[in-house]
Amino acid sequence: MKRIKLTVAYDGTNYCGWQIQPNGNTIESVLDKGIKCVTGEDVHVIGASRTDAGVSALGNVAVFDTESMIPGDRFAYAINQHLPDDVSVVDSCEVSPDFHPRHCNTVKTYEYKIVSSRFPVPQLRNSAWNVPYSLDVDKMRQAAQYLVGEHDFKSFACVRTSAETTIRTIFSVEIEKTPFNTKSSHLADSYVYVIRVTGNGFLYNMVRIIAGTLMQVGKGQLQPQDVKEMLDAKDRTAAGQTAPPQGLTLVNIYFEESEM
Amino acid sequence: MKRIKLTVAYDGTNYCGWQIQPNGNTIESVLDKGIKCVTGEDVHVIGASRTDAGVSALGNVAVFDTESMIPGDRFAYAINQHLPDDVSVVDSCEVSPDFHPRHCNTVKTYEYKIVSSRFPVPQLRNSAWNVPYSLDVDKMRQAAQYLVGEHDFKSFACVRTSAETTIRTIFSVEIEKTPFNTKSSHLADSYVYVIRVTGNGFLYNMVRIIAGTLMQVGKGQLQPQDVKEMLDAKDRTAAGQTAPPQGLTLVNIYFEESEM
Repeated sequence: MKRIKLTVAYDGTNYCGWQIQPNGNTIESVLDKGIKCVTGEDVHVIGASRTDAGVSALGNVAVFDTESMIPGDRFAYAINQHLPDDVSVVDSCEVSPDFHPRHCNTVKTYEYKIVSSRFPVPQLRNSAWNVPYSLDVDKMRQAAQYLVGEHDFKSFACVRTSAETTIRTIFSVEIEKTPFNTKSSHLADSYVYVIRVTGNGFLYNMVRIIAGTLMQVGKGQLQPQDVKEMLDAKDRTAAGQTAPPQGLTLVNIYFEESEM
Repeated sequence: MKRIKLTVAYDGTNYCGWQIQPNGNTIESVLDKGIKCVTGEDVHVIGASRTDAGVSALGNVAVFDTESMIPGDRFAYAINQHLPDDVSVVDSCEVSPDFHPRHCNTVKTYEYKIVSSRFPVPQLRNSAWNVPYSLDVDKMRQAAQYLVGEHDFKSFACVRTSAETTIRTIFSVEIEKTPFNTKSSHLADSYVYVIRVTGNGFLYNMVRIIAGTLMQVGKGQLQPQDVKEMLDAKDRTAAGQTAPPQGLTLVNIYFEESEM
């Protein structure tokens, strides 16, 4: 018996999230089925991050155990032959049988994408939040700096969170602003904002509440220093709105070598 | 009676192309229906470029005639209320009743997107051609320069073309290479190539044959100077492969002011 770690990319648009549901298709279930096609074994993958409906990933992580003789690094190619085209395994390797992707110290990076455009941009409808305002990126960056460091993020978590503690550490919040397409005459004033948040763990809806709050700062509805008061309040109603799921991508999870 | 010009963006994934078909949904038909919801009139839009199934646009152009009292610049907002979320009108204005978007001198810009990645990238499956090789962008740029200028592009047109002449002028071919996402550990060696072609008109499949040929140059299967021989041959079988439709976007059509 050996344990295989998969790194998984997916477009979450057509899924009810990661975790198997009584009704509706999930990332977990298509992985289980894909693995069964390869090894013949009934498996249930363990995911590092149980992303919500509509949320995407470039580097979520799943593990499963197998008696198969296939070398660890060959599983990515083999499983991809049995996955729909909106899910792709981008790496596979054998790990220690003790490795559990949710019981490890990790560094996770999420990106939240906003497109500011007077008219909806169909190409980004499943991967960005379309807002019809221009956003002040300098104010958004000022606001973001209050979030960096170890804080109690209770105000930035869905009230339904089951976490034991709401203290987390954010290592960085970067905000990039790029023109959507300068060659398009009528979308020349549309911009894509990427809010990139890296931390040691995130509460339920935390990145989406951060993105919604920073959008409101960019729009001028909130001031950068309001974010400090939101953290101090330790109350979900103090922070800004929850941004919609389609803008969110789990980009990367870093595990310490010693844990694998 | 007045003539309205619409600039239209769409994700072509779920469409059988621009032009109305006996079976299957088309961009033309959703625009006709959207306009009818606004004005109550039965209209048939005239499109500037009848893009193929799976091809997208940021700036295709359509015109229609109406007795409506709605000011020209308000149609974009009004029609968008009655369009699916993969089609969006990004500008509208009144034009001369004589303006016909296919009987004008224009400058058109297309972009063809390729992602070079060992594993499929689900996020780009409907907007880029995924090739599992790395591509030599310098060679692609060398090859592209042979295409710039006035040439007989017979080798770069689908044999089914009905054009009277196969002579066209390409003003520029730009090729950009950018990392797909440097924060993703396992997709860090994936690159997005944008081939941007601007010209006074394009033959059927011309940009897709250019993109397919340049991909083969980038892969090392063809040499840059082969492109000169392809042009000279005036024979479709001399040029490279036709790249798949999902990588292609009609970005912009420029009309001379005097023609509107």
